[in-house]
Amino acid sequence: MGGYSELESRFRRIAIFGEVQTVLHWDASTMMPETAAGPRGDQLAELKLLRHRLLSDPDIGRLLDDAEAENLTDWQAANLRQMRREYRFETALDDRLVEDLSKACSACEHAWRGARAGSDFKSVAPLLDDVLDLTRESAAAYAAAFDLAPYDALLEAYAPGMRAARIDPIFDDYAAFLPGFLEKVLTRQEAEGGKPIAPRAADPVHQKALIDRLAVAVGFNEKGGRIDVSAHPFSTGYPGDQRITVTFDPADPTNAVMAVLHECGHAAYEAGLPKEWARQPVGASLGMVVHESQSLSIEMQASRSDAFLTWLAGQAREVLGDDPAFDVENFKRYQQWVEPGFIRVTADEVTYPAHVILRTRLERALLSGDLVVADLPGAWNEGMKTLLGIDVPDDRRGCLQDIHWYDGAIGYFPTYSLGAMLAAQLAEAAHADLPEIPEFLGRGEFSPLMRWLGGAIHSKGSYLSADALIEGATGRPLDASAFKRHLTTRYLKEN
Amino acid sequence: MGGYSELESRFRRIAIFGEVQTVLHWDASTMMPETAAGPRGDQLAELKLLRHRLLSDPDIGRLLDDAEAENLTDWQAANLRQMRREYRFETALDDRLVEDLSKACSACEHAWRGARAGSDFKSVAPLLDDVLDLTRESAAAYAAAFDLAPYDALLEAYAPGMRAARIDPIFDDYAAFLPGFLEKVLTRQEAEGGKPIAPRAADPVHQKALIDRLAVAVGFNEKGGRIDVSAHPFSTGYPGDQRITVTFDPADPTNAVMAVLHECGHAAYEAGLPKEWARQPVGASLGMVVHESQSLSIEMQASRSDAFLTWLAGQAREVLGDDPAFDVENFKRYQQWVEPGFIRVTADEVTYPAHVILRTRLERALLSGDLVVADLPGAWNEGMKTLLGIDVPDDRRGCLQDIHWYDGAIGYFPTYSLGAMLAAQLAEAAHADLPEIPEFLGRGEFSPLMRWLGGAIHSKGSYLSADALIEGATGRPLDASAFKRHLTTRYLKEN
Repeated sequence: MGGYSELESRFRRIAIFGEVQTVLHWDASTMMPETAAGPRGDQLAELKLLRHRLLSDPDIGRLLDDAEAENLTDWQAANLRQMRREYRFETALDDRLVEDLSKACSACEHAWRGARAGSDFKSVAPLLDDVLDLTRESAAAYAAAFDLAPYDALLEAYAPGMRAARIDPIFDDYAAFLPGFLEKVLTRQEAEGGKPIAPRAADPVHQKALIDRLAVAVGFNEKGGRIDVSAHPFSTGYPGDQRITVTFDPADPTNAVMAVLHECGHAAYEAGLPKEWARQPVGASLGMVVHESQSLSIEMQASRSDAFLTWLAGQAREVLGDDPAFDVENFKRYQQWVEPGFIRVTADEVTYPAHVILRTRLERALLSGDLVVADLPGAWNEGMKTLLGIDVPDDRRGCLQDIHWYDGAIGYFPTYSLGAMLAAQLAEAAHADLPEIPEFLGRGEFSPLMRWLGGAIHSKGSYLSADALIEGATGRPLDASAFKRHLTTRYLKEN
Repeated sequence: MGGYSELESRFRRIAIFGEVQTVLHWDASTMMPETAAGPRGDQLAELKLLRHRLLSDPDIGRLLDDAEAENLTDWQAANLRQMRREYRFETALDDRLVEDLSKACSACEHAWRGARAGSDFKSVAPLLDDVLDLTRESAAAYAAAFDLAPYDALLEAYAPGMRAARIDPIFDDYAAFLPGFLEKVLTRQEAEGGKPIAPRAADPVHQKALIDRLAVAVGFNEKGGRIDVSAHPFSTGYPGDQRITVTFDPADPTNAVMAVLHECGHAAYEAGLPKEWARQPVGASLGMVVHESQSLSIEMQASRSDAFLTWLAGQAREVLGDDPAFDVENFKRYQQWVEPGFIRVTADEVTYPAHVILRTRLERALLSGDLVVADLPGAWNEGMKTLLGIDVPDDRRGCLQDIHWYDGAIGYFPTYSLGAMLAAQLAEAAHADLPEIPEFLGRGEFSPLMRWLGGAIHSKGSYLSADALIEGATGRPLDASAFKRHLTTRYLKEN
């Protein structure tokens, strides 16, 4: 067997064990009884170790080199490139660092849960310091392996090809745009009569009935997947087995609806990956920016459009019963309401990037050492004042709100807003190609949009670089311009 | 690290991957969407291969030999013995035979589904022949590895220590007892007014409510387990995570109740295994005879006792509403009704062993070649006539009813009835030690019984041989005498 062919067989095996991890994680979040947390941790640790052994096997390095000399198709060559990327990530850190980092993250994440509940940053600060020290060390190792700057090397893990130098102008552009735009939106909202009426509480059984309808509309195949309940919504799975979860908010039934539409966007990406490259690195999704662009294409671009919300209001009324909140104009204003707040996960799409821009600036400063951990709460609160004009009342609603840093995820935050911007850029291109998309959405039909996303994004897997994928789909590199145009149209009704 | 210590570490890892297989099997039977069957098959195949590689590693043979020379505690020595047993099973067959057998069983089991539906034995006969040929080959290989006769070597996999020569007198004893006893029971039933009233149909939601009550009564810990729905009830899991499933029979709500009590008996055994030996071979359950004795101790010995049925009738009435079927005398007669029938899985405890005795005789004859596959239906029908006096109308209700042989499980059937007999023998010993057991059962309380079973059986894991375990718990080797006494008391009210 040639080197390349042997690699395909080995990566297939690694992918199969990855599927097993996926099932165990899903089960842990949805089904597993509480006393099983210990054994499940051991199971996942053994699978992680197995993956490491399979992927860092010295044979792989030799096979990768041998395969370079073979006569490969374009897709095989792209697959080989992705294999080398995975091998580099897996072998960049020595075992001691992997173990130290894993332990430091566990300890810090555990302490963070208590610190957030008590709004007590000091209690977790020394543990965050440990995480940052070890993250600096691992960033240096990845930087050496990939020939990148340390923060870029961390970014690379979540957003292949993304660099700080690419993010800066995009985020600076948006930060400059936001204050004036936000003021206009808020003024306009007030002029239109202030806060819309919120929907009445609804039983989870009725919420589930509405969600099932929407999942079908968006193409979620119930024979090839499941929808369950978990503490936080997520999407997971692999071809043939897509599982999404939902959290029912008894107070507002439309929260679960929008969350499911978001997760269906993620699931559609995974389901649309090239089947002939299943279980190979080139057949996998292309990082978190593209993934988030797919969930936001459905949730934000399509599902909060005037056309779709008009249809959705009728569906909500049919399933949940009559409610003045479902009057179309009120429902649109409710789903498109903009209001600066402290919490990222509940932010509207206008203010969301401010949360991300702040975190991106702060995590870069923390990593470089320009910002010390003790000064984080002050820097956070100052940033929120500057970006959104609000005074953070406590660290629980400030720098303690997100798990990411405390669990060692540095370089992840930018992907949320880059994904939102990419979703807007994709929507412009999709609508230019298929002007009938809004009309279909007005009937609750996602099929033309899904077909377009399938062709432009899903079916490409990791064959292209992110830049090439985005330019191929939209005709230009990623920037904030489409997103700003989208917001101006939606929130100021200007074209 | 010494050989023994290294072995403990390796078997721990093997056990953890076994837990992973358990979760995947459970998920496949309860949660998995249909389109995931293909990927799930690949995942299980990879895990099976991984187990084989870990367990058949030549190092293991050397470590086992090294460890023999070490100074071990009694439990460590027993653990080493069980390790060697697993190693022998795993290495007895060459890779070609394992693969051929696996393929033959898959093909035959698949064909059997169609054959059973159409009552068409001829269509599956050649495939069963293939399975039998390969099973003969594997029985010969196991026989050589364990120095046993071929059928005994197959038995050994399901019932460690059990031999055909031990089974013969027990089953012959019961076969001689059955005709006269059965006639008396049937006469008595008629004299008492014939068939009791069956319970009314009940909604699965109400059935579940009743089941949850019973699961709590029998000590099933809902924080450490789950109860779900599947096509056939089963029990699975490992310490910290016990999962049982139930099938709701809309026509009779008490079927699911008895099935759950059965599965809770299996689950209690697993939950009560020695925690300090978790994930080691000596900490595992001791084969299917003992396992079935635990489920039948709960379902048949305890739950169909007059005392418990009196309490259960009241519970059923509380949860399912008033129903003349729940009048105590009627309910007891209904749950203790005896009637010869064609189907093993729905048989009462008096006639059940006849089904098993027939299968045991036939599978030995098939394995030895004394019976050819073409003659199986005739031999089956003749046996049913002799043992139960009934005429089998078609092969669907005859030799096609059970999956076992068609899936390559030869040597499994005897464990059902040996388990029933052991359960009766254990009940006698438990009641002698704790005469208050029936009184507690009359209040729906299983705790004294469970404590006794925990001390005598569960906590021993695989420390003892089956013979030593049974003699330790009951004072004598396994035979049919306690079972016959139990039936005489229950069904003829004679002591």
